[in-house]
Amino acid sequence: MGNGKDLAPLFTPGSVAVVGASDRPGKISGVIMESLRAGGFKGEVYPVNPTHETVFGLECRPSISSIEGGVDLAVFAVPAPVVPGLLREAGDSLRAAVIISGGFGESGPEGEALEEEVRAIAEASGVRVVGPNCMGIFNSEAGLDTFFIPHDKLERPRPGPVSIISQSGSFAITAMAELAAEGVGVSKVVSYGNGVDVSEADCLDFLAEDASTGAVAMYMESVTNGRAFVEAASRCSAAKPVMALKVGRHEAGARAARSHTGAITGRYEVYRAAFAKAGVLEAGGYEDFIGGCKAFGMERDAGGGRVAIITDGGGIGVGLADACADMGLEVPSLDAGLAEGLSALFPPFFPVSNPLDLTGSATDRLFADAVEKTLEGDFCDIMIVAALWGPPSLTDGLAGLIGERAAATDKPVIICTPGGEYSRARLALWRKEGLPVFSTPESAVRAAAVLARKGAARGGGAGGGG
Amino acid sequence: MGNGKDLAPLFTPGSVAVVGASDRPGKISGVIMESLRAGGFKGEVYPVNPTHETVFGLECRPSISSIEGGVDLAVFAVPAPVVPGLLREAGDSLRAAVIISGGFGESGPEGEALEEEVRAIAEASGVRVVGPNCMGIFNSEAGLDTFFIPHDKLERPRPGPVSIISQSGSFAITAMAELAAEGVGVSKVVSYGNGVDVSEADCLDFLAEDASTGAVAMYMESVTNGRAFVEAASRCSAAKPVMALKVGRHEAGARAARSHTGAITGRYEVYRAAFAKAGVLEAGGYEDFIGGCKAFGMERDAGGGRVAIITDGGGIGVGLADACADMGLEVPSLDAGLAEGLSALFPPFFPVSNPLDLTGSATDRLFADAVEKTLEGDFCDIMIVAALWGPPSLTDGLAGLIGERAAATDKPVIICTPGGEYSRARLALWRKEGLPVFSTPESAVRAAAVLARKGAARGGGAGGGG
Repeated sequence: MGNGKDLAPLFTPGSVAVVGASDRPGKISGVIMESLRAGGFKGEVYPVNPTHETVFGLECRPSISSIEGGVDLAVFAVPAPVVPGLLREAGDSLRAAVIISGGFGESGPEGEALEEEVRAIAEASGVRVVGPNCMGIFNSEAGLDTFFIPHDKLERPRPGPVSIISQSGSFAITAMAELAAEGVGVSKVVSYGNGVDVSEADCLDFLAEDASTGAVAMYMESVTNGRAFVEAASRCSAAKPVMALKVGRHEAGARAARSHTGAITGRYEVYRAAFAKAGVLEAGGYEDFIGGCKAFGMERDAGGGRVAIITDGGGIGVGLADACADMGLEVPSLDAGLAEGLSALFPPFFPVSNPLDLTGSATDRLFADAVEKTLEGDFCDIMIVAALWGPPSLTDGLAGLIGERAAATDKPVIICTPGGEYSRARLALWRKEGLPVFSTPESAVRAAAVLARKGAARGGGAGGGG
Repeated sequence: MGNGKDLAPLFTPGSVAVVGASDRPGKISGVIMESLRAGGFKGEVYPVNPTHETVFGLECRPSISSIEGGVDLAVFAVPAPVVPGLLREAGDSLRAAVIISGGFGESGPEGEALEEEVRAIAEASGVRVVGPNCMGIFNSEAGLDTFFIPHDKLERPRPGPVSIISQSGSFAITAMAELAAEGVGVSKVVSYGNGVDVSEADCLDFLAEDASTGAVAMYMESVTNGRAFVEAASRCSAAKPVMALKVGRHEAGARAARSHTGAITGRYEVYRAAFAKAGVLEAGGYEDFIGGCKAFGMERDAGGGRVAIITDGGGIGVGLADACADMGLEVPSLDAGLAEGLSALFPPFFPVSNPLDLTGSATDRLFADAVEKTLEGDFCDIMIVAALWGPPSLTDGLAGLIGERAAATDKPVIICTPGGEYSRARLALWRKEGLPVFSTPESAVRAAAVLARKGAARGGGAGGGG
């Protein structure tokens, strides 16, 4: 019944069956039912379990095939050995499946045999299968949420433009929680685990055409089919920015990946070449990945790599300028016109430059005026505002004033505000203005670098299409 | 009266005069008086101001020379043009001075002339001068605190082994706040600004012999006297670990440093060679600097660069292993004995390796047992415990159990716990155990790398002494 291409039943199902559903405390299936409820899933939810009459007050079906009219998506949270039989039994009643259960290819010969069996059933029936050994699907707009971590332990991000494709479930939930805390909007997350049927390439193809997805961030340990990946990534990156973090780059990491998802990670140089060919931005690690997602969340492009830095902390300004140079960004000298315009804001002989150091005499107004003046014209492509809260005249109103100036331009404005409890307690002020905020110079510059590469990739075309 | 070498009156004065003292709200001198009070400074505090009778209820002296018996340290927070006269007037009544005021060498020819005058007076009188254009001195044990940022905006770190020498005042306060929030103990901080008299080399010599200082972290834009620096750094690093962050490495950063402290930053290659010669660990940026201080705060050495990684998040484990390889650390394969010992903790066929992935089935007890087993014998020099809070059986008790295992070994144990609000709210649990905790794999590995370099530098001798 599935059509082999369309992943819509996976990402936007009208109905979901939870196979092995139970309301016994601590059961994964119960957490998934709760995640669907808490996420506000609007479609039908069918608990399936032959040994229960009802689960959480819902009528329980003995099998998938007993659901009249069938079901778009079934989530399997049952022991690996019983999965193939239940999947086969579902027959024409099922369009797509998420197999949460571990105990497949990652765990030795018996598991490999079970995984082969699932693959064969999926191929024969056309049912699209995500997993096994995964967390499944999150879709913020649809309220679809198969992640079996309770909401109190794992905050879900608000709806927004970033979609995530992750081979690792724990990486996916960590990134989701991080982005939720950072106020970054997320559209869809798919944790595909062993990838028996639905591959990273399939997900890229779906997200390329998904109107809610503005940018795609991937975590991968290995790739199922290199050629299919490069082709799909090229198509997707032609439509929207794609960033990939490839782990297992070194021997120890590769060894770890092998026991994690059974992945053979391959030589990293091959991946680098594939990313370049497909127009995919490379993330160097977790920090890059999260910073890149925060940059993607802005939905702004940088026209190039010229960075203007405005700060009230000279040392942090110098560090930011160093980090920009380290990461291939330019910190241009002021041109005569801008130097004159900025000088007018200060007492005579005040040294204006880029980075611009407002010093401990900084006020909210001076910060805002300097930001506004520097954003005029074509001096920079990206601005980093590094605000230390020490100066006596700075107030919590600063964030709002900078937010207004940022809203009046289409250049990305990034906040860097390192420090202790006082700064940390004020991170929320910046997030409220929709500004991406970072606690170290390096993390702010990493995000700027992603924006610059994103702009360059979009401006210069997405590269070959396979 | 000062002896030209001994900086004790600067770091541990028995009495402090605040020159230009006033209780008018918003006055820097008032904040300094309040910092001394809040820090619990036990010595005499003398407000000095000819236009006041009392300041904050203390008798105000018209001049430094009118203080009977003189004073160990005077803090100047008055306009630059009046500083030389007041310093000269103090004569024999003064042993050391901190000149907070800006408007000297960093601000053009007139300021340069004033700075020359201060230098000449210091040289003639033997009064040791820190600054100008600085924050001065913080000594947690003595309650000495000349930093003019109020305590509500800048938390002061608790007493502990790390001392900081910083050319930049804003960098110093940012690092102090960051370390306070991270629970890292700090002994002394000196912000020396333009360095007219007391140089980074003088501070290194003092801290080398300071019993409360276990390790030294430096921020520098430039160096006054390269030979003196290398000699002092060599002496200091022979006694305790020294880490340096040199900024202004690239053109834009160097330009910024010039307008910040008037520093001519010099070629970075020269600094690298000097650091290597002096046995100084190099910090690559702000993140490295803070991570290094957190590692120093542990007061533990790593015997080498072999890292054991234990996690419940496979993907984070792979990322940690990658980051270790990136930063020159080894993630060795398990030896047969340890593999057998670990296997005994798990069900049959559970894949044990390094990184060890406990998976979503992790429990507090399993984590603790795996940590304990892996710390036995000589498998690793450093352990990174990467705890994601998702698994249903993990409780807040985990931190205490890991803390106990860490306390029972002398190997450094580093915590990595990325994620959202749930993880962030639990950072304090780890800090309470005295464990350095990091929110990204890269930052945890950076700290491990500092420990490994520190261990190597200590084990292999500190290099030539100039």
